[in-house]
Amino acid sequence: MASPLDPSRTVRELAELHQLTGDDAGAQRLCWTDTWLRARDWLAAQAADLPVDRELDEAGNQWLTLPGRSTRALLIGGHLDSVADGGWLDGCLGVLAGLEVLRRLAADGPPALTVRLVSWADEEGARFGRSLFGSGAAAGHLHPEEVRGLRDAGGVALPDALAACGVELDRAPDARRHLQGAAAYLELHIEQGPVLERLDLPLGAVLGTFGVERHLVRFTGQPAHAGSTPMNARRDALAAAARFTLAVRATAVRLGGVATVGRVSARPGIFTAVAGECEAALDQRHLDAGALAAMLDEARADSAAIAAQERVEVAWERTWRIEPVRFHPELVDLCERSIVEVAGRCHRLPSGPLHDAAEVARAGVPAAMLFVQSLRGLSHTREEDTRPEHLELAVRALDRAATLALERAGA
Amino acid sequence: MASPLDPSRTVRELAELHQLTGDDAGAQRLCWTDTWLRARDWLAAQAADLPVDRELDEAGNQWLTLPGRSTRALLIGGHLDSVADGGWLDGCLGVLAGLEVLRRLAADGPPALTVRLVSWADEEGARFGRSLFGSGAAAGHLHPEEVRGLRDAGGVALPDALAACGVELDRAPDARRHLQGAAAYLELHIEQGPVLERLDLPLGAVLGTFGVERHLVRFTGQPAHAGSTPMNARRDALAAAARFTLAVRATAVRLGGVATVGRVSARPGIFTAVAGECEAALDQRHLDAGALAAMLDEARADSAAIAAQERVEVAWERTWRIEPVRFHPELVDLCERSIVEVAGRCHRLPSGPLHDAAEVARAGVPAAMLFVQSLRGLSHTREEDTRPEHLELAVRALDRAATLALERAGA
Repeated sequence: MASPLDPSRTVRELAELHQLTGDDAGAQRLCWTDTWLRARDWLAAQAADLPVDRELDEAGNQWLTLPGRSTRALLIGGHLDSVADGGWLDGCLGVLAGLEVLRRLAADGPPALTVRLVSWADEEGARFGRSLFGSGAAAGHLHPEEVRGLRDAGGVALPDALAACGVELDRAPDARRHLQGAAAYLELHIEQGPVLERLDLPLGAVLGTFGVERHLVRFTGQPAHAGSTPMNARRDALAAAARFTLAVRATAVRLGGVATVGRVSARPGIFTAVAGECEAALDQRHLDAGALAAMLDEARADSAAIAAQERVEVAWERTWRIEPVRFHPELVDLCERSIVEVAGRCHRLPSGPLHDAAEVARAGVPAAMLFVQSLRGLSHTREEDTRPEHLELAVRALDRAATLALERAGA
Repeated sequence: MASPLDPSRTVRELAELHQLTGDDAGAQRLCWTDTWLRARDWLAAQAADLPVDRELDEAGNQWLTLPGRSTRALLIGGHLDSVADGGWLDGCLGVLAGLEVLRRLAADGPPALTVRLVSWADEEGARFGRSLFGSGAAAGHLHPEEVRGLRDAGGVALPDALAACGVELDRAPDARRHLQGAAAYLELHIEQGPVLERLDLPLGAVLGTFGVERHLVRFTGQPAHAGSTPMNARRDALAAAARFTLAVRATAVRLGGVATVGRVSARPGIFTAVAGECEAALDQRHLDAGALAAMLDEARADSAAIAAQERVEVAWERTWRIEPVRFHPELVDLCERSIVEVAGRCHRLPSGPLHDAAEVARAGVPAAMLFVQSLRGLSHTREEDTRPEHLELAVRALDRAATLALERAGA
């Protein structure tokens, strides 16, 4: 069964999976649904001919293990679950590229390390709002009591949805055992942003994932009649939020991060009233923890200064945060080298979105990622796309990175 | 039945009306409801002893007519209807102050002109969204076909609600006959803004009502991932709307009008996405038609410049407009003189909110208004309030203005 690497097969398999689990609106592999289970079964069937052990772990993660000459393991990861109306590449590219690497390695005889392909459960958190479920469990960051009360839009409780897929929430943390003995972790993903396309590069080596600070920033002024209240008598909460929106943007540009106000909600929220209350949804990200903290500090100071000038109050409520995760420097170098080998050039870039690799890295496993170009930077939509030739280059780069990682671990 | 003017009676009657038609949440005299009809019946009962003709016209307006030595008429107006959870003064102060003036005039024998108190129907438009219903009908600005399809929040059609109050929509325009032969129109109202309180003045003479330009201004950029999209690659519709909000504000300050963005609606409107679309609800007002047009022109130009800089599109949709209405200069002088007589000082100010007086003025009847101070500028809330001594001064000022208007018409 000598099987050289066939990256075009990955492109065909991606199309086949999409055919099987998508519709006109896009990919529909929401985790803990029948469609996701169908994708999982399909993956197992694709690997039926390989000399691999198949396992579903306590958190719903799917493992395909190719025994090597050592029990220490090289892990290659991705996720089959998608958002609703998602794209055909997000997550599953990593799984199917990893499958192709596994095929090539299996054909070459037992590798230096055991090689394990993992398809993480519920990376997206699209149904219950809890991202990185399976990798978080494996990394020791999933606490059942914190998620037990989650329900989907239809009112289904998370533990019930898990149980329907054979997962017992309270046992999910037992998935931790899978990261023991892991020598390295590699993950290929689409960029989901415009950077590589703008640089006209197919591939990039990922430095790490941004830390995120997410807050609701609420300005409270005085609701007033839009006709009878002179401009100098107003305490306009929406105007304060507008100034704040622009201030956090300027700071992000200056400090090299990103900051987004994605929603501004005014009350009473009508034509004829100066807004008495306005809430801004702020998301700030940076790869450097210190710079992220500085962005947050500046935003707080700006909000206070603006509030004073506009004679309104301001209050902050943190809704979520996560620290930046830097990938392993040697593995980043290794990914870059692989990319240069197959594509001639490489760009190093941070990842704004989170990925399972961040959970693995936080658990102390040396980890790194490769990004392949996304057309127009679009993701989480059926318009998500990447050129087939770039997908094929990506499979080759992942394969090279796996080879180099095996050499590194064996050395 | 010699009855000198008793302004304290007006304050007592206002309290009695509120007791009869309000609750813990505020005034509940929505037009075309049983509560409003109760207020109407109560007003008729309060005037039972007066030598006045009582009439309900084709648009639901309630007229109390004190015959004078001429059939030409001085009109004094107000409205009993309120918004839901409204204040105890908005509208009904004008009616009850006018009733007290009518009592005083009746006691003095037939006046030079016929004097008519009118309680306009549905000034607020709170239930069906059509303001100035009764005065608009009298002014010839109500077109039944334009309002026939209106429904309240419970699905009741406007024509049915009117019919339940004895008003046939198609006959409402016949109310026009009531403005024929009108020599002057006076209306007392609470300011509903903070200007007089800031000047520490009880009363002001109103120059006219602001013209209003109301638009939805829609910015369209590119929805993008808040993490993966660098700041310089964004086409952020919400940031554009924020800049626009501040630009229209600066223009209003410079040109002496008011401009309000009371709502900003972003799509997708989540933490993790740069807004691809954002709609700003813009309300601009000015007493001068040219200045209002200039405010609008500048806002359009600003929106285009901002859109170009932010690499987004912008589209405007007008939702409503009305021209400024200037009150009759001699009547404004007369109101000012009356105010100075009773309160020592007067301030001239425009009205941001619309009033029935604007409809009357647009119909060619010389009209003017008096404002009495509103505490904290609040209105359309149960917190709306005015000091009793200011209410009494306001009744005296309206009475003086009526006397001067009768003298002027007789001269």
